[in-house]
Amino acid sequence: MPFSKIFNDPVYGFITVNDRLIQQLIDHPYFQRLARISQLGMSGMVYPGAKHTRFHHALGAMHLMKQTIDTLRAKGTNISDHECRSALIAILLHDIGHGPFSHTLEHSILEGYDHESLSLQMMEKLNEEFNGALQTAIDIFTGNYFRNFFHQLVSGQLDVDRLDYLMRDSFYTGVAEGVIGSERIIKMMYVVDDVLCIEEKGIYSIEKFLIARRLMYWQVYLHKTVIAAEMLMLLIMQRARHLAAGGIQLFATSAFSRFLYPMPLNDAAYLEDFTLIDDMDVLASVKEWSRHPDPVLSSLCLRLINRRLFKAVWMHEAPPDSHLDYLTNQVAALYGLSIKEATYFVKWDKVIQLPYDATKGEIWIFTKNGERRNIFEASDNLSRDHLSHPVEKFILCYPKELNIKDEK
Amino acid sequence: MPFSKIFNDPVYGFITVNDRLIQQLIDHPYFQRLARISQLGMSGMVYPGAKHTRFHHALGAMHLMKQTIDTLRAKGTNISDHECRSALIAILLHDIGHGPFSHTLEHSILEGYDHESLSLQMMEKLNEEFNGALQTAIDIFTGNYFRNFFHQLVSGQLDVDRLDYLMRDSFYTGVAEGVIGSERIIKMMYVVDDVLCIEEKGIYSIEKFLIARRLMYWQVYLHKTVIAAEMLMLLIMQRARHLAAGGIQLFATSAFSRFLYPMPLNDAAYLEDFTLIDDMDVLASVKEWSRHPDPVLSSLCLRLINRRLFKAVWMHEAPPDSHLDYLTNQVAALYGLSIKEATYFVKWDKVIQLPYDATKGEIWIFTKNGERRNIFEASDNLSRDHLSHPVEKFILCYPKELNIKDEK
Amino acid sequence: MPFSKIFNDPVYGFITVNDRLIQQLIDHPYFQRLARISQLGMSGMVYPGAKHTRFHHALGAMHLMKQTIDTLRAKGTNISDHECRSALIAILLHDIGHGPFSHTLEHSILEGYDHESLSLQMMEKLNEEFNGALQTAIDIFTGNYFRNFFHQLVSGQLDVDRLDYLMRDSFYTGVAEGVIGSERIIKMMYVVDDVLCIEEKGIYSIEKFLIARRLMYWQVYLHKTVIAAEMLMLLIMQRARHLAAGGIQLFATSAFSRFLYPMPLNDAAYLEDFTLIDDMDVLASVKEWSRHPDPVLSSLCLRLINRRLFKAVWMHEAPPDSHLDYLTNQVAALYGLSIKEATYFVKWDKVIQLPYDATKGEIWIFTKNGERRNIFEASDNLSRDHLSHPVEKFILCYPKELNIKDEK
Amino acid sequence: MPFSKIFNDPVYGFITVNDRLIQQLIDHPYFQRLARISQLGMSGMVYPGAKHTRFHHALGAMHLMKQTIDTLRAKGTNISDHECRSALIAILLHDIGHGPFSHTLEHSILEGYDHESLSLQMMEKLNEEFNGALQTAIDIFTGNYFRNFFHQLVSGQLDVDRLDYLMRDSFYTGVAEGVIGSERIIKMMYVVDDVLCIEEKGIYSIEKFLIARRLMYWQVYLHKTVIAAEMLMLLIMQRARHLAAGGIQLFATSAFSRFLYPMPLNDAAYLEDFTLIDDMDVLASVKEWSRHPDPVLSSLCLRLINRRLFKAVWMHEAPPDSHLDYLTNQVAALYGLSIKEATYFVKWDKVIQLPYDATKGEIWIFTKNGERRNIFEASDNLSRDHLSHPVEKFILCYPKELNIKDEK
Repeated sequence: MPFSKIFNDPVYGFITVNDRLIQQLIDHPYFQRLARISQLGMSGMVYPGAKHTRFHHALGAMHLMKQTIDTLRAKGTNISDHECRSALIAILLHDIGHGPFSHTLEHSILEGYDHESLSLQMMEKLNEEFNGALQTAIDIFTGNYFRNFFHQLVSGQLDVDRLDYLMRDSFYTGVAEGVIGSERIIKMMYVVDDVLCIEEKGIYSIEKFLIARRLMYWQVYLHKTVIAAEMLMLLIMQRARHLAAGGIQLFATSAFSRFLYPMPLNDAAYLEDFTLIDDMDVLASVKEWSRHPDPVLSSLCLRLINRRLFKAVWMHEAPPDSHLDYLTNQVAALYGLSIKEATYFVKWDKVIQLPYDATKGEIWIFTKNGERRNIFEASDNLSRDHLSHPVEKFILCYPKELNIKDEK
Repeated sequence: MPFSKIFNDPVYGFITVNDRLIQQLIDHPYFQRLARISQLGMSGMVYPGAKHTRFHHALGAMHLMKQTIDTLRAKGTNISDHECRSALIAILLHDIGHGPFSHTLEHSILEGYDHESLSLQMMEKLNEEFNGALQTAIDIFTGNYFRNFFHQLVSGQLDVDRLDYLMRDSFYTGVAEGVIGSERIIKMMYVVDDVLCIEEKGIYSIEKFLIARRLMYWQVYLHKTVIAAEMLMLLIMQRARHLAAGGIQLFATSAFSRFLYPMPLNDAAYLEDFTLIDDMDVLASVKEWSRHPDPVLSSLCLRLINRRLFKAVWMHEAPPDSHLDYLTNQVAALYGLSIKEATYFVKWDKVIQLPYDATKGEIWIFTKNGERRNIFEASDNLSRDHLSHPVEKFILCYPKELNIKDEK
Repeated sequence: MPFSKIFNDPVYGFITVNDRLIQQLIDHPYFQRLARISQLGMSGMVYPGAKHTRFHHALGAMHLMKQTIDTLRAKGTNISDHECRSALIAILLHDIGHGPFSHTLEHSILEGYDHESLSLQMMEKLNEEFNGALQTAIDIFTGNYFRNFFHQLVSGQLDVDRLDYLMRDSFYTGVAEGVIGSERIIKMMYVVDDVLCIEEKGIYSIEKFLIARRLMYWQVYLHKTVIAAEMLMLLIMQRARHLAAGGIQLFATSAFSRFLYPMPLNDAAYLEDFTLIDDMDVLASVKEWSRHPDPVLSSLCLRLINRRLFKAVWMHEAPPDSHLDYLTNQVAALYGLSIKEATYFVKWDKVIQLPYDATKGEIWIFTKNGERRNIFEASDNLSRDHLSHPVEKFILCYPKELNIKDEK
Repeated sequence: MPFSKIFNDPVYGFITVNDRLIQQLIDHPYFQRLARISQLGMSGMVYPGAKHTRFHHALGAMHLMKQTIDTLRAKGTNISDHECRSALIAILLHDIGHGPFSHTLEHSILEGYDHESLSLQMMEKLNEEFNGALQTAIDIFTGNYFRNFFHQLVSGQLDVDRLDYLMRDSFYTGVAEGVIGSERIIKMMYVVDDVLCIEEKGIYSIEKFLIARRLMYWQVYLHKTVIAAEMLMLLIMQRARHLAAGGIQLFATSAFSRFLYPMPLNDAAYLEDFTLIDDMDVLASVKEWSRHPDPVLSSLCLRLINRRLFKAVWMHEAPPDSHLDYLTNQVAALYGLSIKEATYFVKWDKVIQLPYDATKGEIWIFTKNGERRNIFEASDNLSRDHLSHPVEKFILCYPKELNIKDEK
């Protein structure tokens, strides 16, 4: 029998791997690590079903890529076996550089960290190990492959990454609002002059996709309690690093230590350590730190472990300093902390969501007359103004115990 | 507005909590810990979607209990609000005493450990905290409440525990074979003389339930690769404790340490530490130990982390000592280990599955003529002989690298 | 055991009836007739899975009404058992006056027909039969009951009718775009001063509901091939009545005959005949007429039976007479018909869809601060302008055989 | 763009047709007729969601055949494009010879009728129309094609017919018990020496399939109320033909008339008329006959239309003549009928269900050692004795109004 491996997937039924090289990549420690990184970071604290991992998402996106290629080939687009394999690898590894809790700790504990550039570095490392077999995959990932639609499928306005994560996240959270017709969208894909298009009859599915994505942002990814949990995690890391910088001993796996007590390392060693940390390292530390003598650290950690999250309030503008000072003073008084310590309990942020970001390229509709029109021209129901306008909100977090009346 | 909290659940849509006391129990650190204990132990290594937790299962089972009570009340069974609350609490907390990776480490690292007795101890502790409000729940849990059907619903041949876990586990693994009509079964429940029965027209659903449960055992819970992963975890713990007993330093959270280096503690302290450990403590240690100088420990841990599991072979009888010796010798030679060290790489076990265990009580059918008959008398399709006969198999695990031809 | 009847429903699992009066209404010939009226008229010609009936929809809407009442009661709204029963009856019977193929033949063969007024007449007839037990249900249906939210739930901007049909139609067509979180919306319902509101945290579900409804219109209810099939059915009825008016014999059940050869009847007899016709009467006639000597009638009927539908083209404005004349001439030439006969093969219509019709009342959001705001004030994502603006399109149908190049 | 047509299917998402010949067959009146024949006959009277048609089932089974062929090709089985097309056509048309209400009227109104031989006749007629393009499909259907596994897939112990109808019928009835892992079973298919096998790891799915099929029989296909409805339909047809034989006028479409008043026709004309009748012809007549002067006919028809079905009682043996006489006398007295007329209201039947019929061939398991073993040898959970033993029951139907106490 030829090589074939099957993964059960509640979302698509089955994911089949028929290519030994791809199976070797899945078996690689870099990829296995993704099985210990939650797809949705802290969202599991709000949606108890949302414990799925980057590992599963990457497999799912690869499955959709395979379906896409099958569809395009059936419609006459010539795709070689090498291109097919490379596109599958590009999407399989597109998130390989994610750190613990996916986006939560990006730009925080791992300064200068950017999951896309780390993904690229790790893909290049793998390319060496596999004697250059991943070069085309890397070119597709970086947008350097000459047939541009492959890159669009990996990272575009309507890529299989989004098609998988919307399906998967709505499935695992149980939020029906995010369910999209990924299968139908894929059936409607068509490539003209190396540009990815959607057949005209798929317009409504695209409308639904854009709307569902926006709603998933507000209902799941930017749910205010999810943000409150993420802020708590960020404050913990900030405090831990502050203590570490002061030479204080902190429980951590050796790889994770390197990110708490940053040492002058060359890039390779830094990367190597990065490939070893995942949600487990962070959570075990948070658990242990909940007994740490530092009252700020232990108190923040206890909150996270026992899910006593901050209250989160949406605001239309940034909270004035006077209000922040007021809250900080209240915290200091309530918990017997210094003002400086109390600042770890009051935090605000600006949240921006842009439903349609034209810098990612357009979504093209291929009409029955053989023309290519962008989705806003083709649709009766969508307005570019409406969807290209970023929604900006502010969010303010502080302990529920303060008993401040709601503000807006 | 009266108190009401909603949890999204992909399995049932929503789980509503209307009772402040129950919400306080959910918010309690004991219960929050369950959100860090995977429902299916190591099954996530075979079914990548199966990352759901004991927390979610407990909520789901409570939801089914509420549905059951609504149904029974609608059929005229008198159930007081206190009984309703107590039954909900009993099922909510029935698994509170589970340790890391649910059943995986039972009877191993935590010797003399038994999740049901620990659940009871923790429920009693909570009962103190809540000034005796849980007493009836405890009585239902232990079978001491005078109306026996409540206990049947918590722990019987056809309890809401099983109704939830079969639904949930099949949902998250994607194994369609386990899907059962929990809702239909509940709609068919009826209580006669305080005995739980199923209306006659529900017979086929019960047949399906019994068959689905048996199949889920072989396809998920006792899947040979799942057992291989569990054995690896057990061997790691065995080795760690062996090293600990020899005074060797092992990375671990302070609570977990107590179970590696057991100290004479009074029960209360033991229990307290137990309530602090979960999958995170264990996995963080396994990750760190993968760099431990002990070649046995680090090698086993690396296997787990990178999913290089043992090969598992089903056998009809226990492997003869000669075969085990042969395998152990091969391991020793291949890895340059002593025979004693090599024994950590060869392990067998006996697996028993009993589809219908009459000691758990019978499933009763309430016929239209007003009689109570057990399921085997009432069904044309089930045979008691067939389902009451335990299936016994043996399983042998050893490194794939040995390249032994398949045996049966 | 108290009275209880269960209907299997793939959408909600089960629908339970606990009230003998309601079961008697379901058993009544008026209601049983709905089991022979397709919910989506001709949509089954485009979506082969969409064969569900008004009977099933009415049961489903009643189920959602029961869930709504349970939710409102749990939140403290006082609803008497009589009100509950009446609301269930009002929604159960809200579509009782639908004729064959639901909306397809409205305003056509049954001139002056209006399914809502017929529903009312039939409810009044039933009220007599049941000795006035339906009076409150009728008052709720007509908006004369003093607590207005009941009417809103039966016929408002966000009623259980819509909640069921969007769920059910998307389920049976397989159009994922229409899936809405009916359950979640219901859980968020709240009544303040007898006005139906949605709790603030349900805003995204409402957004989704509005969008899904609009998309279902374009993708299913107003799908151009569905309209083409409906036009064909309408043309058949028009031709049949034309022939009947000329005294020509047409195969039909005796009840259906009355609508082909209208006779001066008193209202009661008309109503009585109306309650006897359903999809079967119409389809059997269409089948037989496909062998009728009139070439127009038989040709149209053969097209419907064998699914050789007209080509349908969307246009931005009404087709000019010159174009219609051109097409009619082409038809006449191709099939050897007179111009007058040929007009039965060319038909256009104006299609209007208004996503949010404020005359149906507003959707109210109940904020955490205890205010009531309409959905457009409360939502960041919806624009009243956008949704209150009717989309108007024109559609033109003619035989595919004409081979006219696409126009727009 | 190459030819491609998509059907929405709630069960599989989408069904794609890429072959113009197959689309022509779908467009043919013979196949379009299947859209007016309910898949489950009278089951819609018990399961209101089960209105799906033979048309939809045939498309679904074809979709599974395509998936099967893709799987087998990926595993190295050489299947030519002509063989692929032929297998798709064979399964698409396997039920083309079904009459109104599928199995309900088989062997009744259409004496000597047998849907498989009629399917074959119709396929041969189509083969002429399409100039012999269907010959291989016919050979596969009849078992005359030299590679036997194609016939096994169309009509065997584990064919795609069964895989589709179990999935589809459980989906539309909402009976979770019938859900099977069709996709998984197909992924496990393997062909050795032209024999269809299942890979060893698929054993549990096969066990589930066999059990689910048995349960669907008792819960849906042989549900006692479904049988009661079928008996009513049969009695109506019997009475109608009795009256017709006496020269009494009966409303019917002209094609349907031929089956009520059988005339000496040659085979071709008989077949032609058969291809014109469907559920509509029968139901329209039943509706009209409910006003027929014959009290037996009108009374039976009214019962069917208004769903006042007979009471159905399962028995372990045939009811004794004395009991039948008693019931018939009761009916005669209650309704003022002659004894002869009353016999139309009392009917019994013997129902046999054989879970595993070895004459259909075996289910083969292909073990990892490369052996072929039948499912009973390979499975720990199935017993051939148990499943090869036909279950026989007797069912007795009579008017509920008789008020007879339950018997068993």
